[in-house]
Amino acid sequence: MSRIGRAVVAGAGLIGTSIALALREHGVEVRLSDPDPAALRLACDLGAGGPFDPAADRPADIAIIAAPPSAVPAVLRDIQDRGLAHVYTDAASVKDGVITEAERLGCDLSTFVPGHPMGGREKSGPSAARSDLFLGRSWALCPTGKTDPGAVATVTELARICGAEPLTIDAAAHDRAVALVSHAPHVASAAVAARLLGADTAALALAGQGLRDVTRIAGGDPHLWVEILRHNAGPVAQVLQEVAADLAGAARALRAADPAGAPVQGLLDRGRRGHDAIPGKHGAQRTPDYAVVPVVIPDEPNALGRLFAAAGEAGINIEDVRIDHSPGLPVGVAQLSVLPGAVADLARALAERGWSVHA
Amino acid sequence: MSRIGRAVVAGAGLIGTSIALALREHGVEVRLSDPDPAALRLACDLGAGGPFDPAADRPADIAIIAAPPSAVPAVLRDIQDRGLAHVYTDAASVKDGVITEAERLGCDLSTFVPGHPMGGREKSGPSAARSDLFLGRSWALCPTGKTDPGAVATVTELARICGAEPLTIDAAAHDRAVALVSHAPHVASAAVAARLLGADTAALALAGQGLRDVTRIAGGDPHLWVEILRHNAGPVAQVLQEVAADLAGAARALRAADPAGAPVQGLLDRGRRGHDAIPGKHGAQRTPDYAVVPVVIPDEPNALGRLFAAAGEAGINIEDVRIDHSPGLPVGVAQLSVLPGAVADLARALAERGWSVHA
Repeated sequence: MSRIGRAVVAGAGLIGTSIALALREHGVEVRLSDPDPAALRLACDLGAGGPFDPAADRPADIAIIAAPPSAVPAVLRDIQDRGLAHVYTDAASVKDGVITEAERLGCDLSTFVPGHPMGGREKSGPSAARSDLFLGRSWALCPTGKTDPGAVATVTELARICGAEPLTIDAAAHDRAVALVSHAPHVASAAVAARLLGADTAALALAGQGLRDVTRIAGGDPHLWVEILRHNAGPVAQVLQEVAADLAGAARALRAADPAGAPVQGLLDRGRRGHDAIPGKHGAQRTPDYAVVPVVIPDEPNALGRLFAAAGEAGINIEDVRIDHSPGLPVGVAQLSVLPGAVADLARALAERGWSVHA
Repeated sequence: MSRIGRAVVAGAGLIGTSIALALREHGVEVRLSDPDPAALRLACDLGAGGPFDPAADRPADIAIIAAPPSAVPAVLRDIQDRGLAHVYTDAASVKDGVITEAERLGCDLSTFVPGHPMGGREKSGPSAARSDLFLGRSWALCPTGKTDPGAVATVTELARICGAEPLTIDAAAHDRAVALVSHAPHVASAAVAARLLGADTAALALAGQGLRDVTRIAGGDPHLWVEILRHNAGPVAQVLQEVAADLAGAARALRAADPAGAPVQGLLDRGRRGHDAIPGKHGAQRTPDYAVVPVVIPDEPNALGRLFAAAGEAGINIEDVRIDHSPGLPVGVAQLSVLPGAVADLARALAERGWSVHA
């Protein structure tokens, strides 16, 4: 039997509304609250649930605090005092400081399961919410020694309802992990992008897809990121210091005309192995099993649609696609990933239909 | 009238063979040479031209040296001495050192137009060549004060035949530009990826699309990159030193609990503005004009094909697509870019056909 029939979501922003939408899709009764009445109304209008009514409501099975890290402990204390739910969790992207502060405020840690669903978007607010925001993502659970196992089971079910993979991890280890895989890479991306300020037009015209990839996340909201970094300062500083030392060492070695030693060649070797360690699709190691078939796509109506239709008619499943943009010219290249055995059939089928295939 | 009827390509690797294929598609007679007979034979079998015959051939309109930077000057001197062509160019990714060395070797700089087509792939060798490798890319031309204007006109035509945009730029400015937009970002990507070595599985399971983007180019061949960095050591070292200083400063400010000052918030602000300065599709500034429609795609045969067919049936042109991989679960999300006015029609058409649309 389901542990979650009724839920309270405190915070109707992107994360809270997305969780609420997923719960609603699974028939859970959801009550929402938010200090901003407009956000609350919008989330309710989007079908995320009804507004929380302190007079009428009996305790819910779970309360989810979807608020910034600095707000979570006080909200937790408040709603625990009011007995709003049997189990409590949060969705803040840092965990160690939240737990320390919750303990300092005298929160009941037995019913609180610190959590962090790994979904997000560039946009924010309830209007950006999606019930599938956490689909296929990891959902970190950071129970402490005081956490009741039944509470962990309830939050595990919450993660599964949202389509995520629950992953139990110590809070400090979680914070070090997100410093490594998210927070420090964000700052590094910004540092590379910051060098482009003041570069002349001709230099920027030489930019390719590599630079676009490295700097994409530097387009995120600086204010939001400052808040995240503030709460995970130590672990992020540690990673940034190591990255800075590697880059300074590479610069020194290049000036000393020593590109073949550890500071440059060794760093590139380690970088490639680190890159290969990132899990790919379906949680597995990156699958090098797909073959990539480049196809020229003209900039005309429904070109991609016709391309995929042609592949479909040939009975070939496209596993992934990447579009290489073509600065300066009205054409692009679609890189189609297919099973290696399908390359010849795909190339033939597309060529027969007039596509410029480069398999 | 065309300036290029006959061409010699010295070097049958990825770049040389790709240029040769593009020339052949435009009816140019191409003769190839390569120190590796197997590479030469493969390039010829691929339709890139015939093998160079020193006894039979009269001077070509242009000779393209597609060799590593360290090999270009000696090859240039050799083929100029043999009078193989009226105009000479190269395709090495660094330019200042090549010109200096060519001058030292006594090459004729009036007929030599140093060049750098901005195309490339992760793979190398003639088998990876594509006639469209430079389609829509910039093609840097770095004439010196000694270069004959007629020679520049010929190499400009070469770039256009290959579908690229010729861009005239001073050699030293070129080298600083590629350090900024390509070489230093590569090392920075490797330095972020190198931190992942030794991270435990749980930490890596928290990795999202942002980390994948930042570290993608770190998967490139370290040996190839060491050669590139060796020939552009000074400009790359300068950029890396500045990035390292910014990251070290951010680390210090985070340890000092000062995330709102210039070293962190200021760096993120500059990073966002630098990111926004990168030209996007069709050489224009990034177009924020497309709306993105997320659609859940099941992991089943031809799911993407059916999705694009449905959009095509509804008469809607998909301008771009990105697939968000879903570690751990057999589903993904296709982010479809369409004109804002088409969002409602697309969402309705897809929903009618049973797709889970999140517009």
